[in-house]
Amino acid sequence: MQELIDSVFYPAFSNPLLDQRHDSSVVDLSGLRLALTTDAFVVSPLFFPGGDIGKLSVCGTVNDLAMSGAKPYFLTASFILEEGLAKSALKAVVSSMRKAADEAGISIVTGDTKVVDKGKGDGLFISTTGVGLVAPSLSIQPRNVEPGDAIIISGDIGRHGIAILSVREGLSFEQALDSDCASLNSLVEHILEESKDVHCMRDLTRGGLAAAVNEIARDAMVGIEIDETAIPVVEPVRGACELLGLNPLYVANEGRMIAFIKRESADKIVAACKNHPLGYGAALIGRVTASHPGTVLLNNGIGVSTVLDLLSGEQLPRIC
Amino acid sequence: MQELIDSVFYPAFSNPLLDQRHDSSVVDLSGLRLALTTDAFVVSPLFFPGGDIGKLSVCGTVNDLAMSGAKPYFLTASFILEEGLAKSALKAVVSSMRKAADEAGISIVTGDTKVVDKGKGDGLFISTTGVGLVAPSLSIQPRNVEPGDAIIISGDIGRHGIAILSVREGLSFEQALDSDCASLNSLVEHILEESKDVHCMRDLTRGGLAAAVNEIARDAMVGIEIDETAIPVVEPVRGACELLGLNPLYVANEGRMIAFIKRESADKIVAACKNHPLGYGAALIGRVTASHPGTVLLNNGIGVSTVLDLLSGEQLPRIC
Repeated sequence: MQELIDSVFYPAFSNPLLDQRHDSSVVDLSGLRLALTTDAFVVSPLFFPGGDIGKLSVCGTVNDLAMSGAKPYFLTASFILEEGLAKSALKAVVSSMRKAADEAGISIVTGDTKVVDKGKGDGLFISTTGVGLVAPSLSIQPRNVEPGDAIIISGDIGRHGIAILSVREGLSFEQALDSDCASLNSLVEHILEESKDVHCMRDLTRGGLAAAVNEIARDAMVGIEIDETAIPVVEPVRGACELLGLNPLYVANEGRMIAFIKRESADKIVAACKNHPLGYGAALIGRVTASHPGTVLLNNGIGVSTVLDLLSGEQLPRIC
Repeated sequence: MQELIDSVFYPAFSNPLLDQRHDSSVVDLSGLRLALTTDAFVVSPLFFPGGDIGKLSVCGTVNDLAMSGAKPYFLTASFILEEGLAKSALKAVVSSMRKAADEAGISIVTGDTKVVDKGKGDGLFISTTGVGLVAPSLSIQPRNVEPGDAIIISGDIGRHGIAILSVREGLSFEQALDSDCASLNSLVEHILEESKDVHCMRDLTRGGLAAAVNEIARDAMVGIEIDETAIPVVEPVRGACELLGLNPLYVANEGRMIAFIKRESADKIVAACKNHPLGYGAALIGRVTASHPGTVLLNNGIGVSTVLDLLSGEQLPRIC
């Protein structure tokens, strides 16, 4: 995918706005700083523990706006239906979108629907686009990350990917495991009220924590060190990963984020996160270095560091 | 489709912004009048005479903005690729999008790509969202249409649908027939510079001219009369329609529009359109009446009027 983006999309579309390489593009329009983001959702199955493609499509787009520090305002949604999709399923998805949009405080303002013949789609695909506003003085982006920054995570990782997989593989757990799918904009507002020292934020979706830190290391040209033992992973996720031969660092999340913050403000922000329902599991997990720019090292807690790479293929397809 | 929109989408998403029932939603954001529109494109085949899914996805979204009187600024694009799509095809589509965007003066600012397994998609689907600005004093929308208004069309109809069908059915014509696919924003600017008397505009996409006039008659609760003999149709389109048992009034276009205008300004605007490369075939084709609100009558030129209905099914699937 990265190869495709670098070899096909960037060369054709290249412009200074696209080159921000962040979750949203922040553009200037008549003096307003508009944040724009778009995502296609092709998750399979359409319904999973803790969510469905509708909730996911709203939360995913709200989160991309929030990661730029933008307040979400408007959402558009386009639907590609495969012939034969049950109307009851569509109704359930659409009502779940409305609920998620209301919770995040974003208005669904326009939409479109196309139908493709049986066998030319897979039930339902949704593309959402979000429009938000960034405050005049705020700058949250990879290029602001600098050596010395602390890295905090908002909670335990891997729930979304394992929840999806549990349906696909017919796994069951002693305790129910729901996707972490949630709109993070209220947590982000809470963090930004607490401190002006936030340099960058990123939600941990496709490719998990490993992809997020590698992208930032590459785009900010800094080194990153992550302390493996500091990363929260709940027991059902750890167990399922062992069973399935997966590494939780690469498993997708839909309601978790990392933030890059001036070291002196990190403890205060971790404490603030813990007071928010979406950040109660927050932890300090690493730091930014001037050495090994572009590379992420994983410290295993007994003094051994290994390189934490991007996976060459997707660990789990169609997770969002 | 209309049933689906009325029974599933409107009840769930209902809000004053969505209820505008126009090609774009015009929303207020910190004093700016933002126009937002989104479309999914599932056209088959991906490449057709006069265009491809990439060009279509840009022009279609630019046109939806233009129909609200908005100047287009930003475009987002999300791609759903079926495994096995040739990289050369993707490159051609993406480069065609860039060209169409440059021509329309719109910037592609952010995007997303998902891949689905073979047999779960159909080569490539694209969803685009457009962001534009509407001038403070401008109001172009169905509710402004009033009895006495003249209806003008920007050119001959049916080219896009027949161009697509010619590839699907292996038809050939004496003269090559290209899709009319084009961005109409420059024509709209030209019209709005000429006159302040434009009440509503609508591009003639899915469902063709018949769908457009029926939607406006229903949403503005006015009667509409169309003069069949005044509607421009070129010979290859008329011939292909006869051969295939299609009615050109229902065939899709991607670079044609109608405008509802105060009667006294209509001739001036037709003349202005004829001076523009996308409006050289403009014609006065009908009028708005206070009688038979919600219904469109078609006058056949020898004194007989019939009701021009919406089709109950789609005449041609996957035309855009």
